[in-house]
Amino acid sequence: MPELDSLHCDGKRLTDRIERLAAIGRQEDGSCCRLALTDADRLGRDLVVGWMRELGLEVRVDQVGNIFALRPGSEDLAPVMTGSHIDTVATGGAYDGCLGVLAGLEAIQVLNEGAVVTRRPLALAVFSNEEGVRFQPDMAGSLVYAGGLPVAEALAAVGIDQSRFGAELERIGYAGAMAPGAIVPHAFVELHIEQGPILDREGGALGAVANLQGISWQEVTLLGSANHAGTTPMAMRRDAAHGAARLVCFVHDLARELGGVGTVGTIRLEPNLINVIARKAVVTVDLRHTDEALLRAAERRTEAFLRDLAETEGLEVAVRRLARTGPVVFDPATVQVIEAAAADLGQPIRRMTSGAGQDAQMMQRICPSAMIFVPSIGGISHSPAERTDPRHTQLGADVLLRTLLALAR
Amino acid sequence: MPELDSLHCDGKRLTDRIERLAAIGRQEDGSCCRLALTDADRLGRDLVVGWMRELGLEVRVDQVGNIFALRPGSEDLAPVMTGSHIDTVATGGAYDGCLGVLAGLEAIQVLNEGAVVTRRPLALAVFSNEEGVRFQPDMAGSLVYAGGLPVAEALAAVGIDQSRFGAELERIGYAGAMAPGAIVPHAFVELHIEQGPILDREGGALGAVANLQGISWQEVTLLGSANHAGTTPMAMRRDAAHGAARLVCFVHDLARELGGVGTVGTIRLEPNLINVIARKAVVTVDLRHTDEALLRAAERRTEAFLRDLAETEGLEVAVRRLARTGPVVFDPATVQVIEAAAADLGQPIRRMTSGAGQDAQMMQRICPSAMIFVPSIGGISHSPAERTDPRHTQLGADVLLRTLLALAR
Repeated sequence: MPELDSLHCDGKRLTDRIERLAAIGRQEDGSCCRLALTDADRLGRDLVVGWMRELGLEVRVDQVGNIFALRPGSEDLAPVMTGSHIDTVATGGAYDGCLGVLAGLEAIQVLNEGAVVTRRPLALAVFSNEEGVRFQPDMAGSLVYAGGLPVAEALAAVGIDQSRFGAELERIGYAGAMAPGAIVPHAFVELHIEQGPILDREGGALGAVANLQGISWQEVTLLGSANHAGTTPMAMRRDAAHGAARLVCFVHDLARELGGVGTVGTIRLEPNLINVIARKAVVTVDLRHTDEALLRAAERRTEAFLRDLAETEGLEVAVRRLARTGPVVFDPATVQVIEAAAADLGQPIRRMTSGAGQDAQMMQRICPSAMIFVPSIGGISHSPAERTDPRHTQLGADVLLRTLLALAR
Repeated sequence: MPELDSLHCDGKRLTDRIERLAAIGRQEDGSCCRLALTDADRLGRDLVVGWMRELGLEVRVDQVGNIFALRPGSEDLAPVMTGSHIDTVATGGAYDGCLGVLAGLEAIQVLNEGAVVTRRPLALAVFSNEEGVRFQPDMAGSLVYAGGLPVAEALAAVGIDQSRFGAELERIGYAGAMAPGAIVPHAFVELHIEQGPILDREGGALGAVANLQGISWQEVTLLGSANHAGTTPMAMRRDAAHGAARLVCFVHDLARELGGVGTVGTIRLEPNLINVIARKAVVTVDLRHTDEALLRAAERRTEAFLRDLAETEGLEVAVRRLARTGPVVFDPATVQVIEAAAADLGQPIRRMTSGAGQDAQMMQRICPSAMIFVPSIGGISHSPAERTDPRHTQLGADVLLRTLLALAR
């Protein structure tokens, strides 16, 4: 057995695997389209499962298609698990999810090549349908695994193409027998790209993800009155576009005041004509905060603002809740293990928050969990322009390797 | 010859003609679709010209399809002209334009029936393509007539269906020989629905239209950066939707401050996804004011605001001018004749501004012109719900009749 400190992941081998996986479902614009449980997803799964088997790992598949590759330890204990997902959005990048899976594979290969025996077994997970583009909800595989959604409900989900999750899972050959949650890990660690600009702007430290924002999605419909833009005095208007604009500014200012983030990404006006005052505006509000009390405060403040908006603008206001998850605090001890692993490598790492939803947030329900972030160049993801410096993928994989060793020791 | 004060228009006959014309091009939702120079427009023209001929009027058609029906006076002087248009928008109402034409016809019929001889001839005009939906520009017939656009340019206009104005005019049989502008009126008076809420809200007085707003249409494109709504801190955003919202609020507040009206009726976001910060927003700005200096001030203030917006929001801003007309002041003496005619009838009338563009604004270039407005119920127009109380159509026609008599005396 080699000196453990001398172990390093093979950055080139990792990058090659990322590229080979990204070639499956490649679109003309360079993006990857491997929506969950499509033929492209099957080909991606087959490729990764083939690599798992090449490394001598035992592969198990559960009833919602989550894949687990197991490497035995010297004792029959709960395994240390890593992993992520390989499904993508319609215009996905090469790194989102795939980096975490393939870096886990690389770490195991390094341990195999060094004939390193860990006390605890290791497990590499590929969770089904993290993106939630074809089937709702997102993070469905890890959610079911952690007991947050019954298997039958997940299998019954109807896709945007009217397909059924269960039927598609059978079709692509990944409807396994294992009960979700059957392997309860000792700990779970996920390596992922940041998908945001913070690490890249700050010069390339890695991230030890200590928590994850709660998310509140609402759709707000404002109903006013369509009238002639030339002949209707300002004081007599019920202008849904003006109401929508005030809401956008409110959400922006609110997030600045309370911390967290607030975004209006969609506005749909009717009739949307240059010389007609808008009768209707449909606006989505995305509020996120790491502190549940402040996220609730943001929701209450938005509600009060909309009551006032209805009155002052003469609009009817209807609100529909689209999604709501509470903030997640990852396991502080696991975060410290990640930080120590980075310190051993002389690699700067900063504590941070995940702005996006992650499989690790589901796993935190059943075992101590945490995440490692690597920088996303320009903060870009869900795009063919999604990139991470190969130096950072290698560093991220090395921190993951050392973290797994420390947890499995 | 009867006592002129005893002359009254026949409200029922007027309403019946409005209904018969509205039946041509009627859509399933009850709206009228008689886009300029279509088969429906031809059928409408044929119906109205038939009525003109029944009244013994001489009908002349000019080179851009404007129709003029002439009733001789006792002296060979410049005629007093009234009229409007009968083309509609795609979802037009029964009254917009048609009321002015058919009330003029009704007034002439009343004079015929009373064997009233006026000193000046009377002329009833039907102007081509007022709405500008199929061919640009709008108010094309009256604009050409008043010398504001060469005949050849109007005939060369290409429609939204790729048809040519000149070819369509030939096809429907309304390419006349008369040179536009050949008959220069002594005065022009147009009766029209208000297409706004002021008269209806104020209890049903009529309107003596003393002026018409200048119109400034601009399209503003804001370019920011698409980023993840969860992972991009507020301070690092270049959010085109937030820029667009600030612009909407600015335009609203500016119109409140300077008078006139300001409207953002269209907003188009890209990619318009709930969890992606908008990369691009395209917004139209419609500014109108009766005072050219203040309209220019509004444009300058908007320009300055956009410079500041670009800097503070980190956006690229591009502005495209879509349309610009100056304010029009109608002839005060003609406005007074209208007010006196209403007073003779004991009918309240208020001076007001036209928020919409009108054929009369073009005619004011070549002769003293003014307008009479009747209330639009609920301020609604360009809609199957466009209505005017039959009492008001009759009153409007009576004020028009007395105004024509006074001007032609």
